[in-house]
Amino acid sequence: MIRLYAKDSLVKDKELELNDKDSHYLCTVMRLNEGDDFHYFNENDGEFLAKIIKPHKKKALIKLIGQIEPVKKSKELHLYLCPLKKDTTNFAVEKATECGATHIHFIKTDYTNATRVNVERLQAVAKEAAEQCCRLDIPKILDIVSLEKALIEWPDHLCPIIAAEDGRGQSIKAIEKSISSCDTLNKLTPALFIGPEGGFSDYEFERLSALDYSQFLDLGPLILRAETAVVVGLSLLNTLER
Amino acid sequence: MIRLYAKDSLVKDKELELNDKDSHYLCTVMRLNEGDDFHYFNENDGEFLAKIIKPHKKKALIKLIGQIEPVKKSKELHLYLCPLKKDTTNFAVEKATECGATHIHFIKTDYTNATRVNVERLQAVAKEAAEQCCRLDIPKILDIVSLEKALIEWPDHLCPIIAAEDGRGQSIKAIEKSISSCDTLNKLTPALFIGPEGGFSDYEFERLSALDYSQFLDLGPLILRAETAVVVGLSLLNTLER
Repeated sequence: MIRLYAKDSLVKDKELELNDKDSHYLCTVMRLNEGDDFHYFNENDGEFLAKIIKPHKKKALIKLIGQIEPVKKSKELHLYLCPLKKDTTNFAVEKATECGATHIHFIKTDYTNATRVNVERLQAVAKEAAEQCCRLDIPKILDIVSLEKALIEWPDHLCPIIAAEDGRGQSIKAIEKSISSCDTLNKLTPALFIGPEGGFSDYEFERLSALDYSQFLDLGPLILRAETAVVVGLSLLNTLER
Repeated sequence: MIRLYAKDSLVKDKELELNDKDSHYLCTVMRLNEGDDFHYFNENDGEFLAKIIKPHKKKALIKLIGQIEPVKKSKELHLYLCPLKKDTTNFAVEKATECGATHIHFIKTDYTNATRVNVERLQAVAKEAAEQCCRLDIPKILDIVSLEKALIEWPDHLCPIIAAEDGRGQSIKAIEKSISSCDTLNKLTPALFIGPEGGFSDYEFERLSALDYSQFLDLGPLILRAETAVVVGLSLLNTLER
C-alpha cells in the first residue's frame, strides 16, 4: 500500500488538496485514479485511509475515509554522526530511520572531511524511508555543528553511548547492566556516537568520556564502515529495555 | 594500511609474484614503489607484512617480511537470503561480510523476483569487504537454490533463525534463553533467514517452522528493507554468547 507523510492535520471525512509533489507522485508516477486508496499519516494524527476524489497532476483532491492506525510516537533515540560521501550519508539516514532514530545530529570532528550537510535533502530521504518502513514520524535532521559545540550544549536527558573500535568498548549486555543498576542512567535517552572514517581523535575520546554517564560500546571485532556502524549500533541500542 | 587477500600460502621471507589484478591495484592504482609495505593475509596463515621488491603493473614481486597477526578463524555464521537488485545485493554481501557471516546462501522463494546471482562478482565484493574490515577470511558465496532444496539438504549443525515481521518473532533475548536452556540447541551454529520484499509465503513459514529447533526472530516494530534486515539480524545474532 502507498503511504505518504502528511503535513496537513488529519480528520475523518476531511477533504483536502495535495501539494504538487504528492499529487505528481500519486497521479502521474503511481497512476492512481478517482476512487483509488492510499495511506496518509503523520505523528500527530496517526494513519488514515485516503481516497482520490479528483486526480490531478499538481493538485489532486482527496478525502480522508477514516483512521486505520492510532497515534504512536517513536521512542526518542539520538544519533550523532559525521557527514560521509553523499550516497553514503543518504544511506546512513535511510537506515537510521528504519532503525528508529528520532534525531540525527551531524557533527564535525578532527578527522571529518566533509563540513556541510544538505539538511533539506536528508530530510526528504528520511521522509521517504519513514513512508516505506511504516513509521508515523520522521526523524529530525539537525545541521552540522562542531563536536565541541555539541558537547557544550549537551542535553541533560541524553546518555552518550560512543561506538569504539579500539578495545575500550563494552558489550551491549555490560552497558545494559550498568544502566539497570543506576536509577539516573535508567531514565536517560540513548544517544549513539559514530566516529568518522579514521575514528575520533584521542582528545575527542577524552572529551566524550568526560560527559556525565558516557558509555563506550563495542561493535564487535571487525572494523566497520561508518554507515554499517550506524545500523549495528542502533540495532544494539534497540535491545535495551526502556 | 593496504590489506590484500592472498591465494598463495604465506611464509616468512618468501618472495612471490602477485597476479595481474593485485599488481595493478598496488603499483598502478595505489602507486606503491620498491620498498613500500602492505598487508597480505589469508585464513590459513594469518596476516603478514609484505614489501614490494620489484614494482610492476602486471607481475609485481614482493617479499613477506613476517607475520603480524596470527590465524584467527571467524565463528561460523550462515545467512540465507534472496537475490535483490544488483546494487542492493552487493550491499547486502558487503555488510554481511562486515557483520561476520561466513556462508552466504542465496535462495529462491515464492515471492523472489530475481532467480540468478553472479557468484563470481559477489565473491569479489566479499573479498574487498574482508580486506577493508580486517577479517582474515572471506565468506563463501553459495549459488541460488530453491528454498525447498535448501531445506531438503538442511545441514544438521545449523539452527534456523527466521526474521519475522508479522508478530510471530521473539526478541533476541528470548531466543538466547531458549538456546541456553537446551544443550543440543546450544551446540548449533546460527543460520539467519531473511525473506524477500513481500516476505515468505505462509507455506514457506510452515516449512521453515517444521525444521528442527527453528526460531523466529523479531527485528523490531518497523518494516525493514531486506538489506537492512541483514545487518540488523546479524548484529542481533552476534550478541548470542557462543
